[in-house]
Amino acid sequence: MTLRTHARFVTLEGGEGAGKSTVLSALRAAFERAGIQAVYTREPGGTPLAEQIRGLMLDTHHEPASPEAELLLAFAARAQHVRATILPALERGEWVVSDRFTDASYAYQGAGRGLDAQFIGELERRVVGIRPALTLLLDVPVEIGLQRMRGRGAADRIESERNDFFERVRQGYRDRAVAEPERFELIDASQPADTVAAQAVARVHALIAATSSAEATR
Amino acid sequence: MTLRTHARFVTLEGGEGAGKSTVLSALRAAFERAGIQAVYTREPGGTPLAEQIRGLMLDTHHEPASPEAELLLAFAARAQHVRATILPALERGEWVVSDRFTDASYAYQGAGRGLDAQFIGELERRVVGIRPALTLLLDVPVEIGLQRMRGRGAADRIESERNDFFERVRQGYRDRAVAEPERFELIDASQPADTVAAQAVARVHALIAATSSAEATR
Ligand SMILES: Nc1ncnc2c1ncn2[C@@H]1O[C@H](COP(=O)(O)OP(=O)(O)OP(=O)(O)O)[C@@H](O)[C@H]1O
Ligand SMILES: Nc1ncnc2c1ncn2[C@@H]1O[C@H](COP(=O)(O)OP(=O)(O)OP(=O)(O)O)[C@@H](O)[C@H]1O
Ligand SMILES: [Mg+2]
Ligand SMILES: [Mg+2]
Repeated sequence: MTLRTHARFVTLEGGEGAGKSTVLSALRAAFERAGIQAVYTREPGGTPLAEQIRGLMLDTHHEPASPEAELLLAFAARAQHVRATILPALERGEWVVSDRFTDASYAYQGAGRGLDAQFIGELERRVVGIRPALTLLLDVPVEIGLQRMRGRGAADRIESERNDFFERVRQGYRDRAVAEPERFELIDASQPADTVAAQAVARVHALIAATSSAEATR
Repeated sequence: MTLRTHARFVTLEGGEGAGKSTVLSALRAAFERAGIQAVYTREPGGTPLAEQIRGLMLDTHHEPASPEAELLLAFAARAQHVRATILPALERGEWVVSDRFTDASYAYQGAGRGLDAQFIGELERRVVGIRPALTLLLDVPVEIGLQRMRGRGAADRIESERNDFFERVRQGYRDRAVAEPERFELIDASQPADTVAAQAVARVHALIAATSSAEATR
């Protein structure tokens, strides 16, 4: 299996409280205004089984997963998400917007937990096989993201990690954006929510325009 | 990570109803008679988190896992099992007897579901890292195993597969035994339960004797 880039597939990435869910709502409104069918989904999750796997990853009632088990749970959920939700929607000609995708494993389990990026790449090629045409990286200083999340109730397992873990995750994401400038759009998410949403929507509009003109000239 | 063989680690393999749990009890009795400390465990499972993953693999309440998701769930559970249960016991100097281990993924997800054995090998090296010194393969015609299981209540997801799936699993196990004759002991499990148990116990006694004389001459 080799990695195939899908034109109508957009992902949102960023640390805790960066504003991914907020931007997802803005993108949904923009697609609806434009009359474009899209599926809005998230990771870990996006199918009934994958949501159950998410539950195991975030739940604090059993022993913590080792980094290796956490990585494989993330990719098990993703394998299912791709096959049961994402590819069927793309094959119907719809757009797919996912709150997190494979980049999150490079950032969290790779940069954050220190697992080998080559192995993560092997999993990506073997069981995922697809990449988005556009990844919006909402970049925000760790402290601001965590502040935004306080007052949102009990912390799950990932949220209660220490600050240096989140710093590594942030840097992991930034490194990926530098390595793939064509796919990534890095957005300064410390700006007001409206500004962030407007930048995200503008970038997606540009992708929609490019995609339809590419299809028109085919 | 390279694969390390552990002298005090024994696994039981075989299809549904081959008699693994029955043999495990006989081995437990033999270890207890010999006054040898051992941990008795199973896969998928063997830790609280891994047992929850087992639940997702066997449960019929959500959509079936794709072969890829099933493979990664099995290895997520195994990564956890090795780190939280098996290695700590081996490091305490105890024996470990597991009802199924990595060979089951080669047989079920590899031979059974058609996933690439090279990729399974990569997962084994990357997240498992250990092999048993002895694997008792309880080999029985599929029809006999399935007959033994009837009357044991509702079938879980794996148990309700079709016969040709179980034939491929059986052949996958037999091929592994042929490829690694030193590690595998193939036992004709269509024999009476007492005979099967006696052969298994004799083989484990031989391993115990070899292990203690190897340690005595060190
Ligand atoms: N640009 C922004 N400026 C200030 N507050 C924001 C901004 N974007 C989002 N918020 C607020 O910060 C909180 C977290 O935002 P949101 O839930 O969108 O983040 P998230 O990235 O989805 O978080 P999680 O990683 O937990 O899913 C919310 O209360 C949201 O209203
Ligand atoms: N050699 C044998 N001859 C006849 N019956 C047997 C034999 N071994 C086990 N049985 C019976 O067959 C049934 C299945 O045995 P057992 O539960 O040990 O199999 P298993 O391999 O552990 O099955 P599973 O794959 O479901 O865990 C039990 O009722 C058991 O008593
Ligand atoms: Mg969110
Ligand atoms: Mg059993």
